[in-house]
Amino acid sequence: MSTETPKSTRTEARKPRGLPDRSPADIRATNEMMRVIQRVYELYGFEPVETPFLEYTDALGKFLPDQDRPNAGVFSLRDDDEQWMSLRYDLTAPLARYCAENWQNLPKPYRSYRAGWVFRNEKPGPGRFRQFMQFDADTVGAGSVAADAEICMMAADTLEALGIGKGQYVIKVNNRKILDGVMEALGIDDSQKLTVLRAIDKADKFDRGEISKLLGAGRWDGGEIGKGDFTKGAGLNERQITAIFGLMDLKASHQLFEDGTYAMKHAEALPFAVNETFLSGIAELRDMGNLFDKAGYHSDRILIDPSVVRGLEYYTGPVFEAELTFSIPGEDGRPIRFGSVGGGGRYDGLVSRFLDETVPATGFSIGVSRLRAALDKLAEMRGEKTGEVEGPVIVLAMDKTPEAMASYQQIVAGLRAAGIPSEIYLGSAGMKAQLKYADRRNARVALIQGSNERDKGEVQVKDLILGATLTDIKDRTEYLAKQAEAQFAVPVSDVVAKVREVLARHR
Amino acid sequence: MSTETPKSTRTEARKPRGLPDRSPADIRATNEMMRVIQRVYELYGFEPVETPFLEYTDALGKFLPDQDRPNAGVFSLRDDDEQWMSLRYDLTAPLARYCAENWQNLPKPYRSYRAGWVFRNEKPGPGRFRQFMQFDADTVGAGSVAADAEICMMAADTLEALGIGKGQYVIKVNNRKILDGVMEALGIDDSQKLTVLRAIDKADKFDRGEISKLLGAGRWDGGEIGKGDFTKGAGLNERQITAIFGLMDLKASHQLFEDGTYAMKHAEALPFAVNETFLSGIAELRDMGNLFDKAGYHSDRILIDPSVVRGLEYYTGPVFEAELTFSIPGEDGRPIRFGSVGGGGRYDGLVSRFLDETVPATGFSIGVSRLRAALDKLAEMRGEKTGEVEGPVIVLAMDKTPEAMASYQQIVAGLRAAGIPSEIYLGSAGMKAQLKYADRRNARVALIQGSNERDKGEVQVKDLILGATLTDIKDRTEYLAKQAEAQFAVPVSDVVAKVREVLARHR
Repeated sequence: MSTETPKSTRTEARKPRGLPDRSPADIRATNEMMRVIQRVYELYGFEPVETPFLEYTDALGKFLPDQDRPNAGVFSLRDDDEQWMSLRYDLTAPLARYCAENWQNLPKPYRSYRAGWVFRNEKPGPGRFRQFMQFDADTVGAGSVAADAEICMMAADTLEALGIGKGQYVIKVNNRKILDGVMEALGIDDSQKLTVLRAIDKADKFDRGEISKLLGAGRWDGGEIGKGDFTKGAGLNERQITAIFGLMDLKASHQLFEDGTYAMKHAEALPFAVNETFLSGIAELRDMGNLFDKAGYHSDRILIDPSVVRGLEYYTGPVFEAELTFSIPGEDGRPIRFGSVGGGGRYDGLVSRFLDETVPATGFSIGVSRLRAALDKLAEMRGEKTGEVEGPVIVLAMDKTPEAMASYQQIVAGLRAAGIPSEIYLGSAGMKAQLKYADRRNARVALIQGSNERDKGEVQVKDLILGATLTDIKDRTEYLAKQAEAQFAVPVSDVVAKVREVLARHR
Repeated sequence: MSTETPKSTRTEARKPRGLPDRSPADIRATNEMMRVIQRVYELYGFEPVETPFLEYTDALGKFLPDQDRPNAGVFSLRDDDEQWMSLRYDLTAPLARYCAENWQNLPKPYRSYRAGWVFRNEKPGPGRFRQFMQFDADTVGAGSVAADAEICMMAADTLEALGIGKGQYVIKVNNRKILDGVMEALGIDDSQKLTVLRAIDKADKFDRGEISKLLGAGRWDGGEIGKGDFTKGAGLNERQITAIFGLMDLKASHQLFEDGTYAMKHAEALPFAVNETFLSGIAELRDMGNLFDKAGYHSDRILIDPSVVRGLEYYTGPVFEAELTFSIPGEDGRPIRFGSVGGGGRYDGLVSRFLDETVPATGFSIGVSRLRAALDKLAEMRGEKTGEVEGPVIVLAMDKTPEAMASYQQIVAGLRAAGIPSEIYLGSAGMKAQLKYADRRNARVALIQGSNERDKGEVQVKDLILGATLTDIKDRTEYLAKQAEAQFAVPVSDVVAKVREVLARHR
């Protein structure tokens, strides 16, 4: 290939919207965070497992909330044999396929975790990407709410292990059976259910007026009829909408369930008829509440909250949402709650889609980028510096003769053997640009060896941090003293020790 | 969703060919290996950067060897706006896009590394996947062979850091300009070049007779005309093929270049005319050889070898291949060399495709799964056990009353706080199946607390490893002693200490 491209045929260096490049600071901080999450999950006895990025579209199923868009929110393509494949849109659907395919050989209950990228073919926006990372843990093959409760407690432990204190987060718990029971009682049918779920799920974004449009005839983006995009509503009538709002207004901490009479006590006040499905949801919540209380996870950490629904269709029982409760400045400067960083629930039908037997399952998924953004905000609020990483030691390339390069090579080899990241400058620029490069790399130390120093077996050690402060010094004696501290010659044999000293000055 | 699916509508749990699920042992060993690689790369001053999985197809370019297949070996799909996107087929093409897009703001030379999954829409086979992981390091913006040499030395250091000893590997180095010069001299034109490259690249798989078919009219998979798949050849004539074989037979360690006369001395013996391009390739190899020798990387670690070509079209200068030289049993039981675990080279044209200026670049890519397989083989040869991971402590669910569960919960909470992975059995099976579960999880310890023990504030600690050996003991006294060691009661307050003792027995 020619190394020069004529302008007319030049390709534009650009990437599709909503697909992020990742900076060193992002990668390092995310990896560190994920190691903490992984440690907690392993303490709970979960083991890693990973599935591929592409699956058969029918194996993934269509459980995304945005089913009204033509491609249903996923990236799909045809395989050589014309079968449709899709990039995974979450880590739960592929896990269900994996469990079903390997069910005979898995220890049961099967406790596993995985971190991975997922893909949504949705409209990207600020902080809304088409590729993002999730960190999931799931228990497959355990039908009791003890499994759900354990995952909620693990979520709480995880957030605390990451430095999010009590009072800065809450794990909210609800049960889909409650909503199912209410919808049953109100005569809302299955085809309307997902739209109702999605409308309730938007309660943190929209006021009741807007939600009522989503529950009713539909909602125009632009604020009035005919303006902006139109979202079709669930088609509920006024009585049904009022009842749904009544349900959303129920606020309860799990202590309320302790005497087992909650549903009974309040049933007559509820704006809908109480049925078996509803009561079974209430009973499961009460059992979970008991487990939380006995394990010391009180309502300051895990809270029963009937307004939590989760936007995904496949949940069948308990649903959870991890919410950060501290505030950050919103776009208009007013403080807003950070909000959800993860969620999950019981999905008893997902593995059973493939099998002759019913396989109960429950899981929790962390939105990795959102949680990392939250940790950054918390660090900022604590006045900590984030994202700065100490760069390597830079050996300037003062001359490029084989002898000089061999000498530089010896210096970096010694530093690397001592565990100190270091490199020879390999570009073609002069000394000034080389120092600027060191600065760009966030280097603390530059090493300089011209032919003079080489003849004497010496190297100049330059403290770049101290050096940068010299210009501020007015007093000549102090300046000279600092200058001597900021750059000095040492025998090549002392380089490692001296570099260590200088690095230690700035840690 | 209903939890039971009628058989007729049941989905088959299956995944597309060549897309692997990953086991806990694979994930853990791979992550450990990648941490070592990352540490070496960071010691060399490389910093992490990552790009998305999907890129515009034209930005990636078409540099895969399999260009004769209709979809050119990549997975592609159209975005909402009808532009073609592809899953990345390597990590180099996206890096070139990234560098070009951010060139003004990057420190130059730009030294970066990244690990990630890449996708090839090729025919899967044993050990050949359509999704696999690479670990790359690249220096962009450095034109001198010092950058290439550094990357070769880093590759050698990386393999050694992973426990692959001197003599078990070699980094082979060649230069594309040598081949370019030869092809120029032989009158082989650009359209034939890639096919010639690919034919030479197959030298480790096929004998000369088969390679000569690939260089000539073409090759039938089935061994005779009309049998199996046909691969079109490069269309070279006999004289050209003989000359290419002459080039492949050149074997040279870099010491041969030290006096700078290698090409001259042997030129008359070469079966092709020596031209400028050829000589410039030879000169670069000689310069790299000098750097290797001065830095102490002799031909037992880095070897100049004119048979190395690399199958990708975008290389423009030095090319490298990391080869493991130890043997493993082949399919027919006869020992075969493990072979290539990575490679790379200079690709001065790839970033320049996007820019007004020429941006020289060089890089190295490790095939992560292949390298990990090699490390497993090495561990096996050393008689080490691989893939076994100590499972969590299992607290048996003897009874499921709220009081019992609360007590179990307290036990696991204590173990986890002490850093010991543990879990309550959450399934519905009886005690025997629970112990079998513990075995499947590779647990060393089971904890048992019935209502009797609970009343006394005690727990039974069961050493599962020792317990499994009891049946072999014939002597009654010994049996009783061992049995007491294998299962004993302790006060709840001593559980953590006692579990630690038992775990220590088996480490």
